[in-house]
Amino acid sequence: MNEDAVVVAIDHGLHWGSYEDFADPEATLRTLLEANVDGLLAGVPFLQRFGSLIDDYDVSRIATLDLLHNSTTPGGDDGSEIHTQVFSPEAAAAAGADAAKMALVYGRSDPAVLSGNVEFVADAADACNDVGLPLVVEPTLWGQEIDDEFDGELLADAARIAFELGADVLKTPYPGDSEFVPIVEHAPVPVYIAGGPAVGSDREVLEMVAGARDAGGRGVMFGRNVWQREDPAAVVDAFRRIVHDGASVDEAAAALEDV
Amino acid sequence: MNEDAVVVAIDHGLHWGSYEDFADPEATLRTLLEANVDGLLAGVPFLQRFGSLIDDYDVSRIATLDLLHNSTTPGGDDGSEIHTQVFSPEAAAAAGADAAKMALVYGRSDPAVLSGNVEFVADAADACNDVGLPLVVEPTLWGQEIDDEFDGELLADAARIAFELGADVLKTPYPGDSEFVPIVEHAPVPVYIAGGPAVGSDREVLEMVAGARDAGGRGVMFGRNVWQREDPAAVVDAFRRIVHDGASVDEAAAALEDV
Amino acid sequence: MNEDAVVVAIDHGLHWGSYEDFADPEATLRTLLEANVDGLLAGVPFLQRFGSLIDDYDVSRIATLDLLHNSTTPGGDDGSEIHTQVFSPEAAAAAGADAAKMALVYGRSDPAVLSGNVEFVADAADACNDVGLPLVVEPTLWGQEIDDEFDGELLADAARIAFELGADVLKTPYPGDSEFVPIVEHAPVPVYIAGGPAVGSDREVLEMVAGARDAGGRGVMFGRNVWQREDPAAVVDAFRRIVHDGASVDEAAAALEDV
Amino acid sequence: MNEDAVVVAIDHGLHWGSYEDFADPEATLRTLLEANVDGLLAGVPFLQRFGSLIDDYDVSRIATLDLLHNSTTPGGDDGSEIHTQVFSPEAAAAAGADAAKMALVYGRSDPAVLSGNVEFVADAADACNDVGLPLVVEPTLWGQEIDDEFDGELLADAARIAFELGADVLKTPYPGDSEFVPIVEHAPVPVYIAGGPAVGSDREVLEMVAGARDAGGRGVMFGRNVWQREDPAAVVDAFRRIVHDGASVDEAAAALEDV
Amino acid sequence: MNEDAVVVAIDHGLHWGSYEDFADPEATLRTLLEANVDGLLAGVPFLQRFGSLIDDYDVSRIATLDLLHNSTTPGGDDGSEIHTQVFSPEAAAAAGADAAKMALVYGRSDPAVLSGNVEFVADAADACNDVGLPLVVEPTLWGQEIDDEFDGELLADAARIAFELGADVLKTPYPGDSEFVPIVEHAPVPVYIAGGPAVGSDREVLEMVAGARDAGGRGVMFGRNVWQREDPAAVVDAFRRIVHDGASVDEAAAALEDV
Repeated sequence: MNEDAVVVAIDHGLHWGSYEDFADPEATLRTLLEANVDGLLAGVPFLQRFGSLIDDYDVSRIATLDLLHNSTTPGGDDGSEIHTQVFSPEAAAAAGADAAKMALVYGRSDPAVLSGNVEFVADAADACNDVGLPLVVEPTLWGQEIDDEFDGELLADAARIAFELGADVLKTPYPGDSEFVPIVEHAPVPVYIAGGPAVGSDREVLEMVAGARDAGGRGVMFGRNVWQREDPAAVVDAFRRIVHDGASVDEAAAALEDV
Repeated sequence: MNEDAVVVAIDHGLHWGSYEDFADPEATLRTLLEANVDGLLAGVPFLQRFGSLIDDYDVSRIATLDLLHNSTTPGGDDGSEIHTQVFSPEAAAAAGADAAKMALVYGRSDPAVLSGNVEFVADAADACNDVGLPLVVEPTLWGQEIDDEFDGELLADAARIAFELGADVLKTPYPGDSEFVPIVEHAPVPVYIAGGPAVGSDREVLEMVAGARDAGGRGVMFGRNVWQREDPAAVVDAFRRIVHDGASVDEAAAALEDV
Repeated sequence: MNEDAVVVAIDHGLHWGSYEDFADPEATLRTLLEANVDGLLAGVPFLQRFGSLIDDYDVSRIATLDLLHNSTTPGGDDGSEIHTQVFSPEAAAAAGADAAKMALVYGRSDPAVLSGNVEFVADAADACNDVGLPLVVEPTLWGQEIDDEFDGELLADAARIAFELGADVLKTPYPGDSEFVPIVEHAPVPVYIAGGPAVGSDREVLEMVAGARDAGGRGVMFGRNVWQREDPAAVVDAFRRIVHDGASVDEAAAALEDV
Repeated sequence: MNEDAVVVAIDHGLHWGSYEDFADPEATLRTLLEANVDGLLAGVPFLQRFGSLIDDYDVSRIATLDLLHNSTTPGGDDGSEIHTQVFSPEAAAAAGADAAKMALVYGRSDPAVLSGNVEFVADAADACNDVGLPLVVEPTLWGQEIDDEFDGELLADAARIAFELGADVLKTPYPGDSEFVPIVEHAPVPVYIAGGPAVGSDREVLEMVAGARDAGGRGVMFGRNVWQREDPAAVVDAFRRIVHDGASVDEAAAALEDV
Repeated sequence: MNEDAVVVAIDHGLHWGSYEDFADPEATLRTLLEANVDGLLAGVPFLQRFGSLIDDYDVSRIATLDLLHNSTTPGGDDGSEIHTQVFSPEAAAAAGADAAKMALVYGRSDPAVLSGNVEFVADAADACNDVGLPLVVEPTLWGQEIDDEFDGELLADAARIAFELGADVLKTPYPGDSEFVPIVEHAPVPVYIAGGPAVGSDREVLEMVAGARDAGGRGVMFGRNVWQREDPAAVVDAFRRIVHDGASVDEAAAALEDV
């Protein structure tokens, strides 16, 4: 987990149910494995269920340990704040994970939700130490009390707290180049960027990836910006050129068009 | 638990008390055993108490681990949301269970109830792994915030989350053929259908069973649609013809009339 | 605990403090031991404290594990709903208990109190299995949301749930002969009747005991109807004639007058 | 702990902070040790810190296990109800304690506070058994819902419940001679009286001590009525004459004047 | 931890995120190590991450175990009261800590927050005993119900309670010389002063340090008053002259100007 990497997040089913363009877990998984991703981010039972399939590829497994619901209706968003640890580092290790992952969500209406969150992140960091798994923490501003979830200053704060709680790796929303630089510079751990909804053109996403790389980021941990795009395999390939080969946006975009 | 099966649920006493047509636990149990059901779904103490009786039959035992009350008055329904794990996978295994079972209920008014539910389902999945029991999860829309508990899209979401939490088998309400197909197709685990209240004619139920089978379902886990019907043994026999022998609705209905 | 028995409950001090006619624990205990009761129902520390005294008699010890307060003022009743497990099955066994006992109270205003109650009853049933103690559960309608705490249908529901949670023995309020019959017939475990306040004449109580016996009950677990009556020893003797010797109410009443 | 004794409580700092006339812990401790008290009641860390000093004297150590705050402002009283166990019987034993001690407070506004209180008292009684420490319980009416914290009937109720929860020794507020008699007579364990604020003359306190002794009490567990009085050593001496030597109030008062 | 010392607190990132003048953790750490501080106060993961760097210096490591947030927005202050233990004494010891540290915050609006705080401080004191780490407790008046967080009487109360809960060392806000004297005199453990915001001139801070030393304090545990000042190394040097060498304010101030 201390290397340049294109990781694809496929833990959306755990939080949201049957996600658009990701209704069939195995189909999406096979597409991504064939696309030569460096790593996959999925829930522990997902890694268990498809373990032998994944074994056929050279890919890192990052196990999501927590569940997020914004509603008691599956896939809904009505201001409910459900965030709880559902899998243990021990179970992640038993499922063959190379790392574990949790979100750290600021901006909650209910302070008890954040308090529980910092507790389980810190506990998991300690337990991950014991089982030899690095812990990826994703510090976010998803709470409903925050207006701009890409606020650079607040993201820097959240990233710092994530490190102080025991994160070995950071997965952070990307606030733009200028505000991403200090986050990377001050973090004593590798930093990857998260994606968010698949908005903007492919080229705009490539620009984000290249900007993050230029600022010192180690790569991406994207979900919808891979498997909701028209050609996920081509997108992964383009990301890999930027992250691994130092390609420019133009070069990567050309590769994208080649497909 | 990865086979075509007609399972009968007899855990209603745990949740509702002395249920209509199921006031005498042993009498109902004997009827079902004699009817040659493939499996029984009951609470852990029920399986303990009647263990030697069940031993005389070739039948799978699925142990319900959680209790649901919708009221603090037994058998009532006043919007109370009580859902809690009452038995452990270890106790289920000690009682001779072949599998364990829990409900996952979406649509709650109180997010804390859902949060507790996802936690105990995930914990039980992990503990079931340790004791070698597959975990059946029943993802439902029973919460009072949801209008249509057979909404196909929401059921697909709930089924996906159940799998992601660690379900080895799904028991899902049946939203009709067209909406059941994608649930089965996308689930990486066997799917059985739940029954609900004994409404409609016998023939209508047979159509549901055949429809589910044709869509790829592995069978039924019915309760009231067996032991509240006029002739439970005949109904089980008809279900078995559909599930095991590929009988048509007409063939099964004829068998039902033979009795 | 699978025998005809006259058990006397003396756990009132735990719940209510210095109870009328039971202010002196040792004096009441000695009276009952001399009266040749078959069993005593008391808190774990009570059984510890008076263990060597009880050793001199042939009497079963049933250890109450839970505490009930209806007020934060000792002995009061103001709608507070305090019900919690205070002693463990392990401690009960260490104190020489032959069985353990808990109440299961329906009709609470606060669903969380009932939820906690079903959890600790089920947990205790499991732990009692481990230490070899049968668990007596007393399913009641004591909650303030229920108008008639002797409602036969609701008592049948509560009794069924108590069995489903793991009760090895039931102690149930007595709803009258006709409604008690189905409770006994459907319960796969022995059933004893509870007493309640010492109201009515001695003869009326004898009629209740005989009626319960005739309906299939195994005996009584009475408290105030023994030690608040004028002559507890005579009352116990009369109960024993009914429960053990099959005496009629007239015969037992005559014995009562003999004293 | 089954002996006539003059015990001095010095756990006030734990609950109230820097208490008037008890700002310097070591100075007060030395005064009391020199005054030849039979026992000291203090928090576990206090007993640890001053352990070697106490070793030089022949004095029993009773370890307070719980903390009481009536406010979130130190030393304040604004209706907050904070009562929680802070030390374990195991830690008390490791600190050289001869017994442990907890309060049982009736009259709370919040039933959950009382529920927690009965739970931790019962748990501690069990744990104290395991480590061989008798448990002193102080049943009180300190809750804001009770008008008269010296109500004899309610104190008798609370004392009974304390015994039923596992108290090996009782420390009870003193409701006056006539109402103290039944508490002592009915308690199957030794009873000591608590002091309360240092009000009234020295003679009045002596009368209380002699009255309690005459009623069957085994001695006193006083705090402020010792170290807030003008001459703590003389007061301890006077108490000892009453408790150990059977002195009359006049004799003890004379001794007090001698000093 | 029983020595004169100039300790610098660098746990602000854990509580507040990317703090002004402390955005780069490693840079600040290097500055302080080179400035020859006696000890550093930081979160457990911080001590782990920079362990080998710290190994090159002769400096004590005090591990902060708890997290404080006044808002769910990182770095914010909106009356939220989040205070929870996030690291264990065992993890602190494994990270090479020489001591552990927790805050004890009086003046909360929610009594449950204080109740949790006293519980985890007492538990940590016990666990620290087991792993051989002294526990530093910082008793404060940070709660929003208190007007003057430097109130001498309340600080004396809070310091006393901290000791009674098991503090081996106190880190207290400085209420001025006259009110600091009794705190030190009555505390049976070493006392250090905390800093607070970097307000006032350098000379004013030196006067505080010298005043605390003259009153019996063992030194300082300052954060912002070191690394937010213009020349942290010079400030540390000046503090060291006062604390270790008995320098006057003038002498120390001269040293400061020398730099």
